[in-house]
Amino acid sequence: MLKKVLLSGFAGLAVLAVGILIGHFGIEKGSSAPSWMSDLSRDVDEKLIQEFIAEVDNVKIQENLRELTRVPHMATTAGDEATVQYMLKNWQDTDTGLDASWREDYRVYLSFPNRDKPNNVSVVSAADTVVYTVREKEKAYQSEQDDPEVVQPYAAYGPAGEVKGRLVYANQGKASDYETLNATLSLTGTIAIVRYGGAGRADKAINAAPFGVIGVLVYTDPYDINDGLMSDENETYPHSWYLPPSGVERGSYKNHFGDPLTPYLAAKNGTYRIPVENITGIPPIPIQPIGFEDAQALICELGGSAAPEDWQGSFPCSYNFGGPGFASSSPFNNSDVTLHLYNRGELRDSANVMGVIWGSVEPDRYVIYGNHRDSWVHGAIDPSSGTAVMLEIARVLGQKVKAGKWRPRRTIIFGSWGAEEFGLIGSAEYAEEYVSKLSQRTVAYINVDISVFANATLRASGSPTVQNVIFKASQQVNIPGSDSVSVYDNWIRYSNRTSAAYGNIPNVGHMTGAGSDYASFVHYLGITSLDISYTYDRSTTRARIYPAYHTAYDTFDYASTYIDPGFTSHQTVARTAGNVLIRLADGLLLPFNCSDYAETLEQFVSTAAEAFEAQLVANGISLEPLKAAVKRFRTAATSLDRTIHNSDLANDTPLRARMINDQLMLLDRAFLDPLAFPNKYGYRHVIWASRSSNVATFPGVADAVEKARASGRKEDWAQAHKHLSIVTQAISGAAHTLAEAQR
Amino acid sequence: MLKKVLLSGFAGLAVLAVGILIGHFGIEKGSSAPSWMSDLSRDVDEKLIQEFIAEVDNVKIQENLRELTRVPHMATTAGDEATVQYMLKNWQDTDTGLDASWREDYRVYLSFPNRDKPNNVSVVSAADTVVYTVREKEKAYQSEQDDPEVVQPYAAYGPAGEVKGRLVYANQGKASDYETLNATLSLTGTIAIVRYGGAGRADKAINAAPFGVIGVLVYTDPYDINDGLMSDENETYPHSWYLPPSGVERGSYKNHFGDPLTPYLAAKNGTYRIPVENITGIPPIPIQPIGFEDAQALICELGGSAAPEDWQGSFPCSYNFGGPGFASSSPFNNSDVTLHLYNRGELRDSANVMGVIWGSVEPDRYVIYGNHRDSWVHGAIDPSSGTAVMLEIARVLGQKVKAGKWRPRRTIIFGSWGAEEFGLIGSAEYAEEYVSKLSQRTVAYINVDISVFANATLRASGSPTVQNVIFKASQQVNIPGSDSVSVYDNWIRYSNRTSAAYGNIPNVGHMTGAGSDYASFVHYLGITSLDISYTYDRSTTRARIYPAYHTAYDTFDYASTYIDPGFTSHQTVARTAGNVLIRLADGLLLPFNCSDYAETLEQFVSTAAEAFEAQLVANGISLEPLKAAVKRFRTAATSLDRTIHNSDLANDTPLRARMINDQLMLLDRAFLDPLAFPNKYGYRHVIWASRSSNVATFPGVADAVEKARASGRKEDWAQAHKHLSIVTQAISGAAHTLAEAQR
Repeated sequence: MLKKVLLSGFAGLAVLAVGILIGHFGIEKGSSAPSWMSDLSRDVDEKLIQEFIAEVDNVKIQENLRELTRVPHMATTAGDEATVQYMLKNWQDTDTGLDASWREDYRVYLSFPNRDKPNNVSVVSAADTVVYTVREKEKAYQSEQDDPEVVQPYAAYGPAGEVKGRLVYANQGKASDYETLNATLSLTGTIAIVRYGGAGRADKAINAAPFGVIGVLVYTDPYDINDGLMSDENETYPHSWYLPPSGVERGSYKNHFGDPLTPYLAAKNGTYRIPVENITGIPPIPIQPIGFEDAQALICELGGSAAPEDWQGSFPCSYNFGGPGFASSSPFNNSDVTLHLYNRGELRDSANVMGVIWGSVEPDRYVIYGNHRDSWVHGAIDPSSGTAVMLEIARVLGQKVKAGKWRPRRTIIFGSWGAEEFGLIGSAEYAEEYVSKLSQRTVAYINVDISVFANATLRASGSPTVQNVIFKASQQVNIPGSDSVSVYDNWIRYSNRTSAAYGNIPNVGHMTGAGSDYASFVHYLGITSLDISYTYDRSTTRARIYPAYHTAYDTFDYASTYIDPGFTSHQTVARTAGNVLIRLADGLLLPFNCSDYAETLEQFVSTAAEAFEAQLVANGISLEPLKAAVKRFRTAATSLDRTIHNSDLANDTPLRARMINDQLMLLDRAFLDPLAFPNKYGYRHVIWASRSSNVATFPGVADAVEKARASGRKEDWAQAHKHLSIVTQAISGAAHTLAEAQR
Repeated sequence: MLKKVLLSGFAGLAVLAVGILIGHFGIEKGSSAPSWMSDLSRDVDEKLIQEFIAEVDNVKIQENLRELTRVPHMATTAGDEATVQYMLKNWQDTDTGLDASWREDYRVYLSFPNRDKPNNVSVVSAADTVVYTVREKEKAYQSEQDDPEVVQPYAAYGPAGEVKGRLVYANQGKASDYETLNATLSLTGTIAIVRYGGAGRADKAINAAPFGVIGVLVYTDPYDINDGLMSDENETYPHSWYLPPSGVERGSYKNHFGDPLTPYLAAKNGTYRIPVENITGIPPIPIQPIGFEDAQALICELGGSAAPEDWQGSFPCSYNFGGPGFASSSPFNNSDVTLHLYNRGELRDSANVMGVIWGSVEPDRYVIYGNHRDSWVHGAIDPSSGTAVMLEIARVLGQKVKAGKWRPRRTIIFGSWGAEEFGLIGSAEYAEEYVSKLSQRTVAYINVDISVFANATLRASGSPTVQNVIFKASQQVNIPGSDSVSVYDNWIRYSNRTSAAYGNIPNVGHMTGAGSDYASFVHYLGITSLDISYTYDRSTTRARIYPAYHTAYDTFDYASTYIDPGFTSHQTVARTAGNVLIRLADGLLLPFNCSDYAETLEQFVSTAAEAFEAQLVANGISLEPLKAAVKRFRTAATSLDRTIHNSDLANDTPLRARMINDQLMLLDRAFLDPLAFPNKYGYRHVIWASRSSNVATFPGVADAVEKARASGRKEDWAQAHKHLSIVTQAISGAAHTLAEAQR
């Protein structure tokens, strides 16, 4: 009986088991989750980020830099084409390349000196004898400076012309400088020598012309770039990072960015081009940059009364205004300065090199990472330090993709822009050609141009929404040579601010200017952007930028000897920027914080109120609508934050995450007004547009109020009111996009 | 034994059953499909559409119309406020209302006659005696015309002023008409009488002023509106639908749409307003509309030579140019015409009434359905016929939502716009205030203003992408009084064209003008839009519009007696437009066909080539880039069509449908260029912007080429080239948004 019961029990269990099996496998359970479910809810993989950080290789960055800087690679030259090929070779590599890589060419208007008729600056006596000639080339300390492809120093887009006149010293070439000078002497027919800084390159000539100045020389004062040091016997490069006496900063002397002949249109064959004479924002008179060695020889001979204290530089002489002209005691007495300049414009084909890793879940959402490729000479720091970093980030990610180990949620696009040095041309043409697609789909743009100015600390600027993700990434990366000090902890020591929400935090700068290729993305397209680099300890130098900037000394030797020996700062930037890139590409929720935007807007409003409110009210204009708009924005941001906090995005419908991400992605777009700044090409972002006023608030409002204050004209106050309404509507509109009670 | 075996067998079955239950319910199967899965893949429910069609009630539409037209409801009057309350009452109804409904007010600049000092037009003899006075009010046939709230006929935004001069007849007031007239006599100091048609209202005065004309009268010739009939004894309303002799078409005499003081800014308290004297596109000289009875009394007395054949109208007299002034044989010999006009501008609060049904799956995607609410007088046809239809559509849908039977996939927004008659003001302010949100999220805008002009056939215009969904909807609805003839089959008989892709199909018009509230949506926001109504059999009348348009005769009696007795055409429009609305709101895939856009672009290119290519080439401008862009667009559209065809959206990831829908939703956005038409407020869509040229192609190109042809100036040909590049880039950009190889 026992046996029978046992048997029967076993049989019963067996039957039960069969039943369970049938029940589990044999009957459809409604429907089961489809295979794509887990992909859609996947979030950033912290293990992958740790792997990425570990795999970023300083030696590979160094080798990238060596290859990129073998020859001068000014835009559209043979050297530039060599870098195009180098990018394509890397990004099309079977094992470490991207999904696809290709070039895109634009036919753009550049400006070059004439190789057969070099620009010439001389001092000519009353008897028409040349008594002094400015160097045509920088002095060679290594073979690099002797390369025939080193372009003669010149002012790109400065006009050709032959002028002759008495020399005057005009400080930085600001409008106020010429006014000061003009108060003591007649500037008509003079040549002004000015130093870099204080005003934009083109403005030094644009400001001069109305006073009758007929030519301008520009130089870099050792006070501003070399902490006063001047001797190439032992003080300047190759003995240090400082600029040798013959070094000359080249540059684009053009105020607007993008191809000058095709504003708002991609510069293709057949595209309408404005007449060359209609280009605005370029020097109306001949202008030429020279080294401080030559500048000293001229300035220290000037007559006239001594210039003010803050016009003085490091030369061991009094900086005088000029008689106009040289002192009667000078060997140049009664001599003029002549500029014989032969710059000419040319239509040239400039290439962007593009590379892409397609997104797995949201291929129609783009994270773009870019830097320009063209330099003035060898461009080791500017821009190749950034390109070397970009190549290394792409290599580590490409390798994972090729090995089938990873694919980002969103599409990653790498852009190696052409002709940036002539005014951000490659990136601007790209933005113009793809304006619709980029506006509709781009989550963020990351710019790393010069990746290492110096090796003290991280520096970052960007939209307030990305502050958080930069912090997160920088907390996960250690500074060079340390196992315990994070980039974040180091950064906060060098540059910090007090946030109402967070207390003491590193200072993330604003993207108000057009200093690099982020300009088209932020200002024209309204894409949330950030810019990252490693930079100076400002307590140890007052150099306005690294001294070899835009000179023939910005070489691999310079970079590896003085800027970042061992390339560990480059590695740190690559780790940090790459970490940000992965988080933007892989986050189920975009790592954007809209409440941080509210903090910035509140700060702008209180700055505006402090600086302008009394006078606005006196002119019948109220700040209340603006204040109300910012309050509305804060409320909406808080509400969206709460929605995000209360959401379980991994388990909610995939459209829920998409919906919130679209709100975050498009937030910066809501600040665009294409008609707000009719005279500034490409500036449409009413929060970050360029600003002349020193008041750090809404740029249109600040500049309009300053103008109205100066003129006192009713029409100018009306313009201030208009700009207030523009920014009020944009902020309200942005609040509407965050606030919507959806469901 | 048998019993035991049976028992044991039953026991075994029971155990098996328990096992099955455990296996099925007790054990997690990987993971099961979440509850939202089926919602996300749900498509349009054809049964719901049939229910909707059945439930649309002609009697309810009739009762809506009766309520809406009880009193005159010109914008911002007490009558307008009554309609605001009526909309709110309906849309906030507990059983048949929407999820939410509210009002939004804007402070806008309107123009009214002075009640205390009515506008006056007279004939004054040389002895300063008034010998004839034009009627101040339309003749009353019913109590409606006697309502003190009937606004005196006037030209809104025409200036106040008192002018006196000799009368001339200037046909339609086109620039060419004044030129013709000016060739035979001096227009200096004259008053011109012109008829409606041929030129915009304001243009009749704008064109006149440069010739020295000092005042304008406007009337509707019986030839153009009444098929020549003129007598109110038995020919005109209330005996027929024709305009009585004293009827006057009121209207906005303003070329730009939106509030005239706040272009691009929503007109709130505190918003910056331009000075009134800076308003452009309005009459520079006094202008007044009058009835044809008075016009006849004036025109038939004119002296001078006979006007050309095509200037003649239906009056039984010769239409002469004027001497200037009256014929010597006339009792008005040597008399002048005086205009004493007292119109004045006022800031008034105008309301939009909004209503919403939140979407279930994609609440952040909007389908907007709108019409204006304000009329000139009782406005039974314009606009209340459309509002009555909108209310009925909202009632049927609202009832289903309130009963828990249905909720659309996407959000449906209803808009009852204010102050349309003054220049589409309510819809324009709404577009300006919510520009970011609407641009980012709106799938389509449906406009039904005058829903029934006449009861012959459907008429539709819209973006090419919506042709298909209008066809589909119109095939499912039968014409009034038929069980078998569809709206589509009826439509194709009245208006058709040959499509390369489909053969003979009904003709869907283009949305090139700004005739109703779709203007801000199409032109300013680039939102795919359509406009639907029921209209004339053109073979039976040449009336330029229904004869009571903008007069005191556009009453419920007029509508129910002559336009749509039984309101079955209204019902047909409601069924068709509602069907389109449901399809746009519920389709898993948006019912947009991008290849139909390619067909239109190809047609525009071939029209442009035929009309302009030879002359463009002669001026060094090639059409090839444009042709290539259109080819690129066609290829991309074909590719997206194939992708859609090969997709199984119901079973693919929900982001796949969203991605394709985003491409379709944003297609029209890609044609926006905010800088293309700097002198035309709100026009940004480079395909559909308004056009002066008669060549039906890209408007910027056509107008620029015409200008260059006329002037022969190199700068004008350059502008033609620029517009070609603008449209080429927009089409290429649109192609990029369709083409992306997103794996």
